[in-house]
Amino acid sequence: MDTKALIDSLDLIQKTHPLVQHITNMVTVNDCANITLAFGGAPVMADWGDDALEMVEHAGALVLNMGVLTAESIETMIAVGRKAKTLGVPVVFDPVGAGATESRRSASRRILAEAAPDIVKGNAAEILFLAGEEIRQKGVDSDVSHGVAAVTRRMAAENATVVVATGICDYVSDGTETFRLEGGSSMMGRITGTGCMSASVLGCFAAVLDSKLEAALLGILAMNIAGERAAESLSSLEGSGTFRTRLIDAASLLSSSTLEINPDRRVFHE
Amino acid sequence: MDTKALIDSLDLIQKTHPLVQHITNMVTVNDCANITLAFGGAPVMADWGDDALEMVEHAGALVLNMGVLTAESIETMIAVGRKAKTLGVPVVFDPVGAGATESRRSASRRILAEAAPDIVKGNAAEILFLAGEEIRQKGVDSDVSHGVAAVTRRMAAENATVVVATGICDYVSDGTETFRLEGGSSMMGRITGTGCMSASVLGCFAAVLDSKLEAALLGILAMNIAGERAAESLSSLEGSGTFRTRLIDAASLLSSSTLEINPDRRVFHE
Amino acid sequence: MDTKALIDSLDLIQKTHPLVQHITNMVTVNDCANITLAFGGAPVMADWGDDALEMVEHAGALVLNMGVLTAESIETMIAVGRKAKTLGVPVVFDPVGAGATESRRSASRRILAEAAPDIVKGNAAEILFLAGEEIRQKGVDSDVSHGVAAVTRRMAAENATVVVATGICDYVSDGTETFRLEGGSSMMGRITGTGCMSASVLGCFAAVLDSKLEAALLGILAMNIAGERAAESLSSLEGSGTFRTRLIDAASLLSSSTLEINPDRRVFHE
Repeated sequence: MDTKALIDSLDLIQKTHPLVQHITNMVTVNDCANITLAFGGAPVMADWGDDALEMVEHAGALVLNMGVLTAESIETMIAVGRKAKTLGVPVVFDPVGAGATESRRSASRRILAEAAPDIVKGNAAEILFLAGEEIRQKGVDSDVSHGVAAVTRRMAAENATVVVATGICDYVSDGTETFRLEGGSSMMGRITGTGCMSASVLGCFAAVLDSKLEAALLGILAMNIAGERAAESLSSLEGSGTFRTRLIDAASLLSSSTLEINPDRRVFHE
Repeated sequence: MDTKALIDSLDLIQKTHPLVQHITNMVTVNDCANITLAFGGAPVMADWGDDALEMVEHAGALVLNMGVLTAESIETMIAVGRKAKTLGVPVVFDPVGAGATESRRSASRRILAEAAPDIVKGNAAEILFLAGEEIRQKGVDSDVSHGVAAVTRRMAAENATVVVATGICDYVSDGTETFRLEGGSSMMGRITGTGCMSASVLGCFAAVLDSKLEAALLGILAMNIAGERAAESLSSLEGSGTFRTRLIDAASLLSSSTLEINPDRRVFHE
Repeated sequence: MDTKALIDSLDLIQKTHPLVQHITNMVTVNDCANITLAFGGAPVMADWGDDALEMVEHAGALVLNMGVLTAESIETMIAVGRKAKTLGVPVVFDPVGAGATESRRSASRRILAEAAPDIVKGNAAEILFLAGEEIRQKGVDSDVSHGVAAVTRRMAAENATVVVATGICDYVSDGTETFRLEGGSSMMGRITGTGCMSASVLGCFAAVLDSKLEAALLGILAMNIAGERAAESLSSLEGSGTFRTRLIDAASLLSSSTLEINPDRRVFHE
């Protein structure tokens, strides 16, 4: 992985404006739409039965996010996810709060099995739960981090998918190769929606890259860079409100001319 | 049309705080509420059956936005829209993604026919679809622009309504007179919600002006001025996140004391 | 009440990160999540039947907000509210637009009676309605303020709860003691969501303090301080969009090191 791969992918998103369809939650849906636009994608939040099913025919990627669950939304996610698979539309799944309640445990397992996502991105606790590890979770957030690399790899192998476990370090694996990503900012945990937005960004990259492992690595890398730049821009009088605005700013300003980063200092083979 | 008409209308909104009821979508609902407040209106997002039906009795205008569709929301939009008509409450309809899926094609045609909105505001692709033109659309966005003026005029005449088609230029017609508006900013397409917010602004103006043609012209003009000011305020380190914030800022700062614009340089008879 | 009580409470929230579950509306849900995070709480917006019912077992506080009503959401609020009571989880109720429509009149009375919230926080018009006073309301907002102190006290006594009536002055009563809080900023009425956010902040304080009267006083006090600081930070070119961002900033920067306020100048025994 080198800087050129990241620049080329960003250019490709900005030139082709892939349609990134979301079935997501009301809490962070606006942020997801804006970060998708900031990266150059075309967001569409069609999430109702027939509308969602037809829209996916035009989608470059599909993002499934179970932040707010209903009986109906679970079935829609599975139905649209299955149709995406038959159409070759890559599916990104964000199992928000996967282990927190029985509804979420059941829904996340079903979506994983039945929609067979190309990329599953969760925080460490969510990935550990989906991999069958015993953990305790509080609400939809967690910062568990022990043994995450190995679990990420095992879960990716067992489900023939790419798995992303986010945290202080992020882990990405396709079951064969596993990477650790350093970077980002602790401020990303001070606002709601950075996890959901990361899934949207993965959707943008998955829409333009054949390798979903590469899409996951570049998407997380790009999001971490945006997070760092947003955090660095804050004065002592600016807090999490301004950080949220600057995160979208930084994403919208990522481009070949401003990218002077070295992925080799951030992405490590495990 | 002159500057005074715009200033007088803004004053009237800020003095009377008309209740602008929305039946809209979760993606941009917060932005719609905030832009309505910025202009001086009182937003209320009542969108559930009986609650929405009763609320419209107190409304100064009703905004119907089909950004996120459900079977139930379509029926509610039509029922509340019909009641608004019987009460003399002006109705603004934003047919988001009208041509994109069969659900949206069917819903937009039904709402247009059954709720008989006073103003229909869409992007060029949405208006072309509703006017019966053959076009292709990707998701809920589009930038088609050929022959829009004539189609806008024809659709307005055929539906006895005011039609607004937004784009690089905006077209407004009541079927007799047609205007082209220049101005605004390309940044308005870099964030989600500017179209939805425009509909909210049209609701504010329609609530205080008898002529819906004038309301449409002044509303789009005001939104374009806000967009320009927001874009002009951006430094090279600020992107689409800050633009979104500044757009609301600019709207909230529009007033007689700061308005030094000349509509004659922006609004042209076609 | 002294400064130390406020500082100690803020520290406690930031150290224990209480889970603040919301059943709320799509208009302001993102702001509610971000202000909860800004204060140090862990927001979770679980609002669907079984998921919401199980989540409350882990909650430090439950916030019920009827900004957007559906038949289903009313029942969920009551069911989860009742379960919260049996678990000893404090319940904060925001009766948004309580008197505006028959749906809201009926729902607000039922939630008050059946969920028996620990704190009811509304604007003056909402509290006057729930207390049985005759008032007129426009949409979900109002600025009625006559005789609010006495009504607040009576309603608190009759319902054995803490009542908060917000406005230019805020009134807080447990039925025995009644306080008037001065401060805040008129800008708080220029954006949507400050009322909803206040309820979230009350949830944070109620989760860590046994006295719900103290929680209500400190929560409103903290929100007012954040509002003042946000307003003071605005330049003449910045309006309501920037105010919204800075309000979250100010909340996220409240801490023992920056707090140099004197509650005695802001909180008055009635």
